[in-house]
Amino acid sequence: MKVTALDVHDVRFPTSRRLDGSDAMNPDPDYSAAYVVLHTDTGAEGHGFCFTIGRGTELCAAAIEAYAPLIVGRELDPADLGEFARRLTHDSHMRWLGPEKGVVHMAAAALINAAFDLAGRVAGKPVWRLLADLPPEQVVDLVDWRYLTDALRPDEALDLLRTARDGRAEREAALLATGYPAYATTPGWLGYTDDKLVRLSREAVAEGFTQIKLKVGSDLDDDIRRMRLAREAVGPDIRIAIDANQRWDVEQAIAWVRALEPYDPWWIEEPTSPDDVLGHAAIRTGVRPVRVATGEHVANRVIFKQMLQADAIDFLQLDACRVSGVTENVAILLLAAKYGVPVCPHAGGVGLCEVVQHLSMFDHLAVSGSTEDRAIEYVDHLHEHFTDPVRVRDGHYLVPDAPGMSAEIKAESRAEYAYPDGPVWRS
Amino acid sequence: MKVTALDVHDVRFPTSRRLDGSDAMNPDPDYSAAYVVLHTDTGAEGHGFCFTIGRGTELCAAAIEAYAPLIVGRELDPADLGEFARRLTHDSHMRWLGPEKGVVHMAAAALINAAFDLAGRVAGKPVWRLLADLPPEQVVDLVDWRYLTDALRPDEALDLLRTARDGRAEREAALLATGYPAYATTPGWLGYTDDKLVRLSREAVAEGFTQIKLKVGSDLDDDIRRMRLAREAVGPDIRIAIDANQRWDVEQAIAWVRALEPYDPWWIEEPTSPDDVLGHAAIRTGVRPVRVATGEHVANRVIFKQMLQADAIDFLQLDACRVSGVTENVAILLLAAKYGVPVCPHAGGVGLCEVVQHLSMFDHLAVSGSTEDRAIEYVDHLHEHFTDPVRVRDGHYLVPDAPGMSAEIKAESRAEYAYPDGPVWRS
Repeated sequence: MKVTALDVHDVRFPTSRRLDGSDAMNPDPDYSAAYVVLHTDTGAEGHGFCFTIGRGTELCAAAIEAYAPLIVGRELDPADLGEFARRLTHDSHMRWLGPEKGVVHMAAAALINAAFDLAGRVAGKPVWRLLADLPPEQVVDLVDWRYLTDALRPDEALDLLRTARDGRAEREAALLATGYPAYATTPGWLGYTDDKLVRLSREAVAEGFTQIKLKVGSDLDDDIRRMRLAREAVGPDIRIAIDANQRWDVEQAIAWVRALEPYDPWWIEEPTSPDDVLGHAAIRTGVRPVRVATGEHVANRVIFKQMLQADAIDFLQLDACRVSGVTENVAILLLAAKYGVPVCPHAGGVGLCEVVQHLSMFDHLAVSGSTEDRAIEYVDHLHEHFTDPVRVRDGHYLVPDAPGMSAEIKAESRAEYAYPDGPVWRS
Repeated sequence: MKVTALDVHDVRFPTSRRLDGSDAMNPDPDYSAAYVVLHTDTGAEGHGFCFTIGRGTELCAAAIEAYAPLIVGRELDPADLGEFARRLTHDSHMRWLGPEKGVVHMAAAALINAAFDLAGRVAGKPVWRLLADLPPEQVVDLVDWRYLTDALRPDEALDLLRTARDGRAEREAALLATGYPAYATTPGWLGYTDDKLVRLSREAVAEGFTQIKLKVGSDLDDDIRRMRLAREAVGPDIRIAIDANQRWDVEQAIAWVRALEPYDPWWIEEPTSPDDVLGHAAIRTGVRPVRVATGEHVANRVIFKQMLQADAIDFLQLDACRVSGVTENVAILLLAAKYGVPVCPHAGGVGLCEVVQHLSMFDHLAVSGSTEDRAIEYVDHLHEHFTDPVRVRDGHYLVPDAPGMSAEIKAESRAEYAYPDGPVWRS
């Protein structure tokens, strides 16, 4: 099939009006998406987006448009999306603006995920199943191996994938029956009052979550009080992760986390710069037994590779739309499996839960083969705008069964929240 | 003074038509600039840009515009440009699109350098002198210390700057008399014929350069032949650096450089991904006695910090416009001085020579206090478009004396090469 057009949308939700999503680095996010629809000459469509927090979304939208000459009017082979991805990420002019990071990489993510959404629709499969049904050789071909072979070679990846075939049928049956574990970030936004924190923490436990997350990093006394309140609210058996959103330097991170240690934090997330591999390794040593997690802002597979090589993290938090979409995330899942580090994806925002669940379910069936100490972040924002919204029951993501990657925002929501001309923004 | 307007220009030079600038990763660059002029209510102006290689320059231009609400209509204090820089790089919505990398960071560089160009013009000083004349405390205040203190604290930086005052007058007299060392990349572009390589290598030596550079990494047999020809042309006493422009994986880099070792390469530049701190460290161990250099695509001070902490590089090649301009480069110069690693800036492109010379001259007078094993890259392209072009004599950059940062592209060049509507692109 041939791609005939790209439709690009700048969609912004005014979440800052209620402090949903507020943290130590991002006090007033307006959850947004640079959104794309791939149209083809067969009538098949693919939807994808990258997640932003307001101003600057127009840059990601423009970057999607800038890739159009590499896509529109050209063949798209749903059986060779590795080639499609490399066509974008290897383009030398666009690559200069990263390389493989920031605006151009997020735009590539939107397009590559849209191509997978399209491939799923064409095959009549949700993307988790599309990926899990690929022969190991085809999974390996999705990956851009450049810069990876000192940590993982294609033949090692093949071995991993072949080994993961054992027990697949049992895992799939269990996944279909109970879903994939989730944890709840809804209680812990920094802008919420203590009462709201306690109430939402209790509600999360009542809804079946066994892990919640609190934002920290703005004021230590506040954090100690909030962590104590949350621990008292949920009891000793619920995991409470804490998330500093990159607020600290290395030594500061260690001191701050140690001060919260009496309340038994499960992990400290994004303690410092997402680029700081050696910093994370030092923090991990300094805050034991508290674990270290990061990844939502890790730019690409090269930084993740080093996080694993340096024993810098206990949990890898890939994001569906910051690295270059499904193809680069397949590489990251393979790296994590080789190093034995559990992947607990970043989600929330707008649409990240919908899209990333496909990756974790693929990982469980075909790569790591495990859900132990794994959970996908869950935030109950904005799902009503999707045609195939996530369904969470008893602290688990239920398996999506619609063809595609659950990435489609309803046409009426795209129109209402269009920036700057949609009715929500004109008023 | 108050900023009254930003003028943004997309300026592109059709350099791909002659294979100037061709390397193993970038076969057809059109050297370009996303260019900005800051206008103020005093009539003072500041010029800045970031360097791109063609398609996508419009994204950097749009990112500069996206920062306008943080600048236009607001005070700009030439004595507190650290605050100006942090206002841009700490903006949470824009930061989400990096953080501190890629399109938004390059746009911040254009604006921050423009603010220094303006400060130099207002003070009647070239920026190298403006910076070198600052009290150490004010230099330290330029730096965004976030994420640095595990490697360098402000008090250590103050000590470095105070120590560097010794011998300043002698160094300044020598700098004014003979300039700052340069090396020549002009001979070695990958698209050039062997004859042109040999001729230009000989010319560079005749012009007084003691170091030249060859692009490598596309074909090993070609590289061996070209390296042999260059070595025969210049003799044993001229340093020949080689530059792979990120083409290799770690093991491939080591094998390739070892194959070229008989021709005594001075350094291998960008052997692999600029994000790969641990990869560079492994390559450095594997290619000794050949040295390792990188930096033109290093996204920010956090990656440079780790390159130094991990003993990954022998030479640090900062770029004037990829990290966030003068302020972040001051941090990087201080880090390099602490770790004793010589800074040999990336230049060439369009305008990079003009701008970066100010940083090296400041470094020599006020930070490292040395030019040993240091040289600024020099490429003889496109200088004719600048109002204050670099002057290179006997292999040295002569000291610029016009107020500002030598960043101004002539108005007629901006008009002629404007993309897509300038006469060069319409024809």
